[in-house]
Amino acid sequence: MTRPLVDRLAIVGAGLIGSSIARAARENHLAGTIVVADRDPSVCGRVRALGFADDVTQSAREAAEGADIVILCVPVGATEAVAAEVGPALKPGAIISDVGSVKGAVLAALAPHVPAHAFLVPAHPVAGTEFSGPDAGFATLFENRWCIVTPPEGTDPAAVERIRMLWRAMGANVEVMSAEHHDLVLAITSHVPHLIAYNIVGTAAHLEETLTSEVIKFSAGGFRDFTRIAASDPTMWRDVFLTNREAVLEMLGRFTEDLSALQRAIRYGDGDALFDHFTRTRAIRRSIIEQGQETPAPDFGRRAVEKQKHEES
Amino acid sequence: MTRPLVDRLAIVGAGLIGSSIARAARENHLAGTIVVADRDPSVCGRVRALGFADDVTQSAREAAEGADIVILCVPVGATEAVAAEVGPALKPGAIISDVGSVKGAVLAALAPHVPAHAFLVPAHPVAGTEFSGPDAGFATLFENRWCIVTPPEGTDPAAVERIRMLWRAMGANVEVMSAEHHDLVLAITSHVPHLIAYNIVGTAAHLEETLTSEVIKFSAGGFRDFTRIAASDPTMWRDVFLTNREAVLEMLGRFTEDLSALQRAIRYGDGDALFDHFTRTRAIRRSIIEQGQETPAPDFGRRAVEKQKHEES
Ligand SMILES: NC(=O)c1ccc[n+]([C@@H]2O[C@H](COP(=O)([O-])OP(=O)(O)OC[C@H]3O[C@@H](n4cnc5c(N)ncnc54)[C@H](OP(=O)(O)O)[C@@H]3O)[C@@H](O)[C@H]2O)c1
Ligand SMILES: NC(=O)c1ccc[n+]([C@@H]2O[C@H](COP(=O)([O-])OP(=O)(O)OC[C@H]3O[C@@H](n4cnc5c(N)ncnc54)[C@H](OP(=O)(O)O)[C@@H]3O)[C@@H](O)[C@H]2O)c1
Repeated sequence: MTRPLVDRLAIVGAGLIGSSIARAARENHLAGTIVVADRDPSVCGRVRALGFADDVTQSAREAAEGADIVILCVPVGATEAVAAEVGPALKPGAIISDVGSVKGAVLAALAPHVPAHAFLVPAHPVAGTEFSGPDAGFATLFENRWCIVTPPEGTDPAAVERIRMLWRAMGANVEVMSAEHHDLVLAITSHVPHLIAYNIVGTAAHLEETLTSEVIKFSAGGFRDFTRIAASDPTMWRDVFLTNREAVLEMLGRFTEDLSALQRAIRYGDGDALFDHFTRTRAIRRSIIEQGQETPAPDFGRRAVEKQKHEES
Repeated sequence: MTRPLVDRLAIVGAGLIGSSIARAARENHLAGTIVVADRDPSVCGRVRALGFADDVTQSAREAAEGADIVILCVPVGATEAVAAEVGPALKPGAIISDVGSVKGAVLAALAPHVPAHAFLVPAHPVAGTEFSGPDAGFATLFENRWCIVTPPEGTDPAAVERIRMLWRAMGANVEVMSAEHHDLVLAITSHVPHLIAYNIVGTAAHLEETLTSEVIKFSAGGFRDFTRIAASDPTMWRDVFLTNREAVLEMLGRFTEDLSALQRAIRYGDGDALFDHFTRTRAIRRSIIEQGQETPAPDFGRRAVEKQKHEES
């Protein structure tokens, strides 16, 4: 039998991402032992029932003891407290990593708690759904998605390579970049899109009551597309906006400027400007589909899913 | 044999919506004869090959002659010119309808061309995909979707009832309201969502070249959800914004105000305000799913579609 990639893998936080990592590690035989920690006893019970961990504990420190790789899968704002608990338990040569959606703030929160005999290699899998908790995870979540690894300057290349290999073994493509650049790119690919989705759904919710009920009724006209990401976890997203403030405000500024230009074109009836803008945006979707990051099926394949369910019932 | 709902049904414009109506009418035996008109000879050829019409012609006037119901399925901005051609050909008792996404402007464009011996009953099926043309249509497009009918005041109730029955027979739920109210509701459920989707994709396209390529790569973080509606037909959407200006600017104003409040909360680190906002927006999606207007599957069911394709190949 070949040796697994990691002897003891510790995962702190059994939510969507943590439980998906545990499942992927288990299905692909990537770890000798998979230990999962979650502060909530009922979540621990659920993890035991789901059976994707060898050991389950409420104590992050206990999970980290003797682990070769520890991955924190908690909201960005909880990183510092969890790191303070886990750091002292890290054994010589251990790697501590995370999955946080913001990387600059996470680096600052983690670094002081990593002992000199351990390695810090933060990462962010660009994959997820609008659901949370241990039941929402699945082993193939990271397949053909990107995982961005943001090691601080001077990190031991061997430690970086182990984290790369782990993510590749879970089906992800890996890219390495600085935490700062990560935060700028994610501001436009993820954080601002979430903000404006949350915002338009909020605008609809503030309308007079009868109008809001009509918004729900006629949402298939486009609105419903936005409600998916506006149903994401509020704690996670609060933390993202609090910790990636500069980049989000910068990209939001560009968004608002561009929106003013479109608004002006509407006000003054400039059909050519509108037509030109609407033509240029098509190419981006085409590229995303070509790169395997999106389905070409009409309407995200919603119809196919509904039909399938219908035929099964 | 029972008599079909309509003896002669004429559809002008064989795009996504027109071809879907023809297919739905054919599959459900709703018309004795289905005539489809399209100005483009190659589209006419395609319609013949696809076989969902009994007669195909390049002339909208010819299609309308002798028809009991004529449905214009062209961009809102083309309505007036097509109505001028079709109006004089309408037989006594004929109903002229349309499917335009804006109703106030369409009413104004159509009304002068409808002879006194015919009836005008505009309608708007709130259903669609990001694709266009005769190949994109399908018979079930309107199933369990809403169709909004906006008869001008004083319209013969029997004519309104015929249009309602036609849409119901194609699987739609029908609601009647004024053109003005329709335009306000659709501004928030469809027009502003499309505008901000077009806008964020545009903002991403304007970034420095390397950043834009990273946006494409890491689009699974949320951005790709917006690219779907930003891939919709530019002509159709130019016309929507030019003809529903007032309501769009009104709703866009509310959106921008709300966005400023969120931006301020980010700038001043007001986590509670962000958390509250992000919590309230979840209920709206839940209602949309409960009302059967959206799939509860994670990620719009994208994974299920990919998996299905994978297993078939
Ligand atoms: N969701 C996505 O799409 C996505 C994608 C990429 C990266 N991420 C990142 O992944 C991380 C986890 O997100 P998720 O989607 O997996 O969230 P989730 O399903 O809500 O799970 C969050 C986990 O963190 C734990 N936790 C929360 N606050 C804590 C605290 N103060 N101390 C200790 N543990 C705490 C939770 O414990 P309980 O069981 O007690 O609730 C739970 O196990 C976040 O940093 C997020 O930015 C998310
Ligand atoms: N797409 C949606 O999601 C959706 C949903 C509800 C309602 N609608 C409304 O449905 C209508 C049609 O949209 P669609 O999605 O079916 O568009 P489409 O697939 O692009 O088809 C448009 C049709 O209109 C014809 N047309 C365009 N300009 C014309 C002109 N100046 N004179 C005569 N015919 C012209 C086109 O003819 P060619 O064959 O020559 O191009 C084509 O047959 C629009 O009013 C739109 O607002 C669309």
